[in-house]
Amino acid sequence: MQIKRLASAVAMATGAAGLMTLAATAQAQETFEWKMVTSWPKNFPGVGQGPERLAELVDKMSDGRLTIEVYGAGQLVPGFEVFDAVAEGTAEMGHSASYYWKGKAPAAQFFAAVPFGMNAQEMNAWLQYGGGMELWNELYDQFGVEVMVAGASGVQMGGWYNKEINSVADLDGLKMRMPGLGGEVMDRMGVAIVNMPGGEIFTSLQSGAIDATEWIGPYNDLAFGLYQAADYYYYPGWHEPTVMFEAIVNDEAMASLPDDLQAILRTAVADVNQSVLDEYTARNNDALQTLINEHDVQLKRFPDDVLAEAQALSEDVVSELAASDPMARKIYDSYRAFQDKVESYHAISEQAFYNARNPEGDTTTE
Amino acid sequence: MQIKRLASAVAMATGAAGLMTLAATAQAQETFEWKMVTSWPKNFPGVGQGPERLAELVDKMSDGRLTIEVYGAGQLVPGFEVFDAVAEGTAEMGHSASYYWKGKAPAAQFFAAVPFGMNAQEMNAWLQYGGGMELWNELYDQFGVEVMVAGASGVQMGGWYNKEINSVADLDGLKMRMPGLGGEVMDRMGVAIVNMPGGEIFTSLQSGAIDATEWIGPYNDLAFGLYQAADYYYYPGWHEPTVMFEAIVNDEAMASLPDDLQAILRTAVADVNQSVLDEYTARNNDALQTLINEHDVQLKRFPDDVLAEAQALSEDVVSELAASDPMARKIYDSYRAFQDKVESYHAISEQAFYNARNPEGDTTTE
Repeated sequence: MQIKRLASAVAMATGAAGLMTLAATAQAQETFEWKMVTSWPKNFPGVGQGPERLAELVDKMSDGRLTIEVYGAGQLVPGFEVFDAVAEGTAEMGHSASYYWKGKAPAAQFFAAVPFGMNAQEMNAWLQYGGGMELWNELYDQFGVEVMVAGASGVQMGGWYNKEINSVADLDGLKMRMPGLGGEVMDRMGVAIVNMPGGEIFTSLQSGAIDATEWIGPYNDLAFGLYQAADYYYYPGWHEPTVMFEAIVNDEAMASLPDDLQAILRTAVADVNQSVLDEYTARNNDALQTLINEHDVQLKRFPDDVLAEAQALSEDVVSELAASDPMARKIYDSYRAFQDKVESYHAISEQAFYNARNPEGDTTTE
Repeated sequence: MQIKRLASAVAMATGAAGLMTLAATAQAQETFEWKMVTSWPKNFPGVGQGPERLAELVDKMSDGRLTIEVYGAGQLVPGFEVFDAVAEGTAEMGHSASYYWKGKAPAAQFFAAVPFGMNAQEMNAWLQYGGGMELWNELYDQFGVEVMVAGASGVQMGGWYNKEINSVADLDGLKMRMPGLGGEVMDRMGVAIVNMPGGEIFTSLQSGAIDATEWIGPYNDLAFGLYQAADYYYYPGWHEPTVMFEAIVNDEAMASLPDDLQAILRTAVADVNQSVLDEYTARNNDALQTLINEHDVQLKRFPDDVLAEAQALSEDVVSELAASDPMARKIYDSYRAFQDKVESYHAISEQAFYNARNPEGDTTTE
């Protein structure tokens, strides 16, 4: 009866306001206040803008019915505990990258970055139209977490080195910070891999505790001041043809939302997925010019033999990961089948176009 | 007073329903029924899926408050009258490509496809983070239309030819269907450009009325059966490094929407912008394999001298367009400044990565 009275009151109120048409029933406007934990410092350039934009879009689209408070790494939980916090419901959602969860599910690495694997445009196509998202959710389902792709870095840089690399032999004995599968490849080329959080990279490189490091790309690397600690900036970032970022949502929290708010959340994530890459693409351009023109950074392409050896070893490392458990096998079979096709198609489209537009290839900026 | 009574009724109704929290005021739920006219056949593969997805997302996110009926080309207005229909308010919105409106505003072509210009990833970065969208809206503002970017094809194919092209001289005297700026470039290489709608391409090519045609890429080209009418399939599509599609909205219609529905509409368009490209990337892979393996299509790269000549002539054609009016100048100055930077950055990232992953380059699939 109270519902009936509500509908009647709405009809009267809106009739008086002179509106054109009305939804058949007025809905009770339940509101939700969520927490989003992230693996990035609050408002970090590039990837850290994604969560902020997500919260803003959801707030606007839901007219304040779903508000999301964004927490930087360490503000509510440490950056590497984002997944657990979401799985346990400490926070309703999170923004991170799946390779951080390889301890829980080794196959998670396939959704973040694969050495000599797919770039951002290819990953998005596989995830959305090639079965990738279904597999990613199958992997996370056991933890009570839903995942959506939520940003890309684009092809990263190869890293900062305090000596020139003229052959594979020059890598031998170097101490380098490079996480993930790329680090395993480097290790097999004789590099001693050192793990450390982002905040320690600069001083370690400057003090000589490490001889080299990868970070992200010109935009973030410039902000970190890495050009002050190493002379040579190598490309391309074969170890990370992109990182894909993830938005993860606690299953029960998602289920508590009405259908329209679920759709709003998912679509806001899709917007952020594109906008993070757009921001990186735009900002990296300017940062690269600054690094070259103002800081005299020496841009170097990895020698052919380093790239060839890295590619062969990447095959080994990735194949071993695929063989490590049945889910990893299933995911990589899908990944690789898609990569084989898209690599063949992009060879005659994106790659052929880049090479037609800039026939001198990638050495012109040296 | 009626508003007050409404709020009170809502509080009672929802209190009884046991909901957790409530929006401060219940809003009258005005609904909107919009028409979207498009330049594509209804449900056309690839680009025609964009408008359908847009309507579905908006319906879900708005819980039916904004519904959009999608019309294929010719169902409500012809495909080339989409812009006028939206400007005049015959339809609230449209989905099309800006180069169709060069008769109204020559500079519109810069937002769709520029020979040897920017690809999809680069266009998105320029539009969203390089000032491109602001310029596009400045251009359309005089017509009472707001524009959003709403899909990309990726690098297209160079086209279907019934003879081999071994040098620029082989182009002389060919009759070819190629619209836009690319057609002007071809014209300067001695090609007789013939304009015709998509529906006439196949029979014209088969009958010999034309010797060559470009269309889109493997996915759409396979569906059109063009492999039955010409033997050679050339790449890369230097004339269209992507087409960017557009969603246009009548200014008054947009202003009539409350803020939340405006945000919902804009965010749905952002989702579609990415998903159209994802679909093309995924489907083109499979279609290319089918064309090669089942239909014995001969895939050919344009000879170096054709690409070099096309690039030089493209500079001329694009420069002349830029000089044609002050707005074209302003837009192209922004476009070109961004391209110069992103081309330099992508040379050491995306391009260098493609070439490291597939060192044989774009000829391996021949």
